[in-house]
Formats: sequence, C-alpha cells, structure tokens
Amino acid sequence: MKKNINTTDIFNKNKEEFININKEYAIGVDLGGTNIVSAIINNQGEILSYLKVRTLAERGREATIKRIIETIHKNIVQFQSTIAPDGNGISIIGIGIGAPGPLDIKRGIIDFAPNLPGWRDVPLRKILKDEFSMKIVLENDANAAAWGERCFGVGQGVDNLVCFTLGTGIGGGIIIDGKIYHGNNYGSAELGHMTVNKDGPRCNCGNYGCLEAYSSATGIKNRIKSKIKSGTKSQFLNLDNDNSLESISLKSIFEAARKGDKLTENIVEEAISYLGIAIANITNILNPKMVVLVGGMTNEGDKLLLPLREEVKKRAFYSNYKSLKIVIGKLDGNAGVLGTAALLWIPEIYSL
Amino acid sequence: MKKNINTTDIFNKNKEEFININKEYAIGVDLGGTNIVSAIINNQGEILSYLKVRTLAERGREATIKRIIETIHKNIVQFQSTIAPDGNGISIIGIGIGAPGPLDIKRGIIDFAPNLPGWRDVPLRKILKDEFSMKIVLENDANAAAWGERCFGVGQGVDNLVCFTLGTGIGGGIIIDGKIYHGNNYGSAELGHMTVNKDGPRCNCGNYGCLEAYSSATGIKNRIKSKIKSGTKSQFLNLDNDNSLESISLKSIFEAARKGDKLTENIVEEAISYLGIAIANITNILNPKMVVLVGGMTNEGDKLLLPLREEVKKRAFYSNYKSLKIVIGKLDGNAGVLGTAALLWIPEIYSL
Repeated sequence: MKKNINTTDIFNKNKEEFININKEYAIGVDLGGTNIVSAIINNQGEILSYLKVRTLAERGREATIKRIIETIHKNIVQFQSTIAPDGNGISIIGIGIGAPGPLDIKRGIIDFAPNLPGWRDVPLRKILKDEFSMKIVLENDANAAAWGERCFGVGQGVDNLVCFTLGTGIGGGIIIDGKIYHGNNYGSAELGHMTVNKDGPRCNCGNYGCLEAYSSATGIKNRIKSKIKSGTKSQFLNLDNDNSLESISLKSIFEAARKGDKLTENIVEEAISYLGIAIANITNILNPKMVVLVGGMTNEGDKLLLPLREEVKKRAFYSNYKSLKIVIGKLDGNAGVLGTAALLWIPEIYSL
Repeated sequence: MKKNINTTDIFNKNKEEFININKEYAIGVDLGGTNIVSAIINNQGEILSYLKVRTLAERGREATIKRIIETIHKNIVQFQSTIAPDGNGISIIGIGIGAPGPLDIKRGIIDFAPNLPGWRDVPLRKILKDEFSMKIVLENDANAAAWGERCFGVGQGVDNLVCFTLGTGIGGGIIIDGKIYHGNNYGSAELGHMTVNKDGPRCNCGNYGCLEAYSSATGIKNRIKSKIKSGTKSQFLNLDNDNSLESISLKSIFEAARKGDKLTENIVEEAISYLGIAIANITNILNPKMVVLVGGMTNEGDKLLLPLREEVKKRAFYSNYKSLKIVIGKLDGNAGVLGTAALLWIPEIYSL
C-alpha cells in the first residue's frame, strides 16, 4: 500500500519521460522543527528533485530563514543539473511552503511556531517572494498533507475527505467539495484538539483531555512517564529513566502493549480508542467519504486500522460508517511537500 | 432578541404591503412527531399564513400522510382567502418539507422516522408532487432550521455557521460557503451524536456517551430518572413518580438546579458543560463564524449562553473562539418552516 512514490527511484529514472509529460514544475517545502525538506515535482505528483536538511532551529530565526532559502536554491540547481542542464524548456511556477500553525495564510505570515524558537509574525511569503521572484503559497502542514493525499495519494478523485496527521502532535486537514476547508479565519481542522475526555490530561494547547494528549506520540510518552512515576515498570521495554523513553520507538511501545505489558497496555489501548472516537465524531459531523491517516503511527498498518474501524462502527451512525473508507495514506513522509507544491496549480484560492 | 417573527402580528397586518414586496410565495412544512406545521412565506421570510395541527402519528402512516396533504390544502385556502381573494397575482413556487432523519434527500424519501410509527421508505416528495403538481423539496429538520436562521434570522449574511437544535433530541445543521453542507450521503451534522464521554450513558442511537444523552431534554430527564431510582430526592420539584417528571418543564428543572437542588444540580451542570465541549469541538474542527442555538433549552437565554461561552473559551483555540459568535436564534419555533420554504428559492441544490 505504501512506497508508491519512492524519491530515489524517480530520481534515478530517465528524466526525459517526465519532461515530456509536462514542462511545468512546482517546489514544495516542508518547514519542520527538525528538518527542512524541499522537493520539485511535476503536475503528476512525481518528485524529480529532493533535498532534506536539518532545520537547526536553535541557531535562531534569521539562520533558519537563510537555511530555507539556501535549501531551495540548492534543490533548484540539483534539479536543473540533472533534468535540464541547458536550462531550456523548464518552468518553475512557484514555491509552496508547509508550516505548522498558527498561520495567517491570506497574508503569508507565520504567526507563531512552537517548534521554531523566536518565530513570531514572520512574513515568510514576502521574504521568499523577494528572494525568488515567483509565486509563493503558505499553507498549514496538515492541510498540505491532506491536499497531497487528495491530489496524488489515496484520496485521488475524492472530493470530501478528512486527514489526520498522527505524529509528535496530531493535526488535520479537511477537504470539502474538492477544496481545502479553512474555516472563518484559517483555524479549521485542529482535530488533535477535540476534547475527548473532559477531565483528561492537560494538553500543550492549555485544554484538558484533547485527543493529542492521548493519541499523539508525545501524548503516549507523557502518559507512560506519569505511569513510571507512579511506580509501574515495563516488562518488555528497557527504561532506566525518562531519557531512555525518548529514544524508544512508537513501534516498540505498541509491540510491548500487544504482549500485555503492564506499563503500556492500557495507554496504547486508550490511544487507539480515543482516536477511534475522534474519527467517529468526524464521521457523524462531516459524513466524509474518506478518512486518511498519515504520520508515524500509521506504520502499525492493520494493527491500527482494524481496531479503529471497530470503534468507529460501534459509535458512528451506521449509514455514515458504511459509506466511509478509513485508510492509511500512501505518500509516506511526502504528503506535505507534494500537497504544498500542488497548491501552485490552484493559486486562485490564495491571495498571492 | 426573540419574537422578531410573530405570526399573529403578521397575519393581522395589511397584506397588501407583503404582496407588493414580492409576488412569489413558498410553503414550508414541518413534520414532527407531535405537530404538523404549514406556513406560507414570501422571500423576505415573512409568514403570511400559518397552520398547526396535531400529527396524530398513532393513527398510522396513511392517516398522517392524508393529514399533511389536508393541512397544506387548508393553509393555501386560508392564504388565498385573506391575501388574494380573487386568486390573482399569486404564485406559489413550491413546498419544502422538513422531517427528522434519516432521509434520502436526493430521492425525496423518508427512510425511517423514529417518532412516526410505520414510516419506512416513504417517497414523500413523489406523493406530494402527485397531489400538488409543484416543486417539492425534502430536507432534514435541523438543516432546515440552520437554513432558516441563515436566511431570515440571526445568521443573515453569515456564510459559515453551525446550528444546534436543542429539543427532545439534539440535531444540527452546518452551513459552509453559504450552502447547507450535506456530506457524502446526506448524513452530516449529527451533532447530538458526538461522543463526549466514552463511558457515558447509552443513547437512543445505540452508542454510549453521546451529547444527546447528556444535554437534550430527554437526556436530562433520563438522567434525573436514574438518580431518582438510586434514592435521591428533589428539594424543589414535586416528583411523585416517573410520570410526574414528564410533565415538568425544562425551565423548572434548570431553576431547581440553580437553587442547589441535590437531584438536578449536577445533571444540569453537566448538560451545559458537555454542550460547551461539543461547541468547542465544532469551533476547533470547523472554525465557524457563528454557532446558533435553537430549540426549547434556549429559553434559558443568558443563563445558558454565559456558561457555554466560558466552557468554549476554556477549551477552544483562542483565535477560533475570539472570532466566533455564540448566539440564540431569533425565529422561535419557525426556523424550520422558514428554512424549508426558503429552499425553494435555491432549488438547484436538490434534484426535483
């Protein structure tokens, strides 16, 4: 189901065939707290040039902005040297940037970025426009992932889908009538901040009992930490201290839980159960045709999907459940860059 | 805030002024388990002729269908005799029917109606079309109420709103981009069936911990009943048995709770708190410009609104909360008939 887009494969292919499909290309950039990714794609969603560097956010805002610009320049040079060394027949129509919210998409400003120290009211669109003199689009990273799966992934042709990004945190993107749904002031689809338990653990957002506090990687690890503090020991995980937990993969945690590990069993069970409740709520509220799951946790595959579908079946209206597909995205980590780049082909929804 | 449309007032006005506004009229019908309402309106949302009769659903499906038809005929006769005794210059463009789901809006069929015994797969649109030879539109009653408030009530000019109908049960309607949002197969906006507590009381829909099980009139009374069973007595309500509870108004229950009544206090508190959570979830998911509350419970006014706003402020993203208006509808019980009638002016969204 996965690995449909393997950047290395594509990169090693004879490039002539892509150039013949379409001479227009777009750049998708994913700005994360850990990595900056730049990818140049054609309008078939094929990645022709890919570059990933560390964000090194701790060096400060100006240094990170410089790194973004350098990465894009390098990616363009890399693209041109392999695809069209003579520079002929190539047209890059613009750059799409995916970034964690809150963003002012209309004005192209990053209001605030929790994982990027010092980022407040950064007019990233203007900065990049001044540098590259092409169209620049800014979009929430989870909306971009939803759009990527909609255009090139598992949601092709589906005009009504909801995407959950299951990573360090939990984000979301809602596609209605074939367009990203932004809400009244670009604050929609904060699916990780649905309250699923009114008296639940405190979430990073300040609220209590958010989905993210139960079902994100951070939420799961925080809950394990507090259980360790209360004296529970893991039967399968080697946990000497809090730090050793950070380096343990979600996969190991899920495996331990499946073996009946006292420390992790209930926590993983609740993580899946609350995610199922959130999907059931979305099913009853939005009656989408498809719910797409992307992000680290989806590596669990059917071990995640099957109990989720059971929970949704139990809780959602049957006719809504019956007509719904709950699936894992197929673009791996590339949904975001593919989605932001794809926005360049529908620029009319953003003021550029 | 309320009573903007008082049918008696309008009915006693000089009808000439309405006829001069617009010569097109539409009929809105609300088919409920208790009453059938038929209202003839102009495109300013003014009700010119209004008729309410008991549904008498216990007499069976055929008898109820006959009653619907008779009521509409009587309403037309009443309208013509007072507005245009000569029958000139009057054009009724169609009939909109609001009914509780689940409906097949596209095919005009009531799949199933919990409050109407024997109603299964009733092709109500075809039946009424054969009888009246005019355009007939079928819509979910809560969607109709949302549309009524959007067109003629508190949501005029608001293209992005969510309506909660707080009655015996809890329904909802979602307006996106100025249109009713139906979802993939007309199952959207089942806001009463958001799971707000995974281990909560059983709901009529079969799920556990739905909003409706906590915050609807039925949910509140059911929870009071089980507390009575466990031996708690009310300090302010005269409750000899389960039956006496049925006849007690929501108003009395809320008043008793505010006085610190042991039986009702926590139940009413939780009803409001869970409704606040549901609105906060909608705020984070859909980032609407307005949440409109209609139905019996809204008679509480600010005593309901103020604690709700507090709960939403506490739980939703601040920028989403800040840009949101949470208000009570202003069409009283007429949002539904006004909404269904108003659909006749945008018939292109339904296949007729």
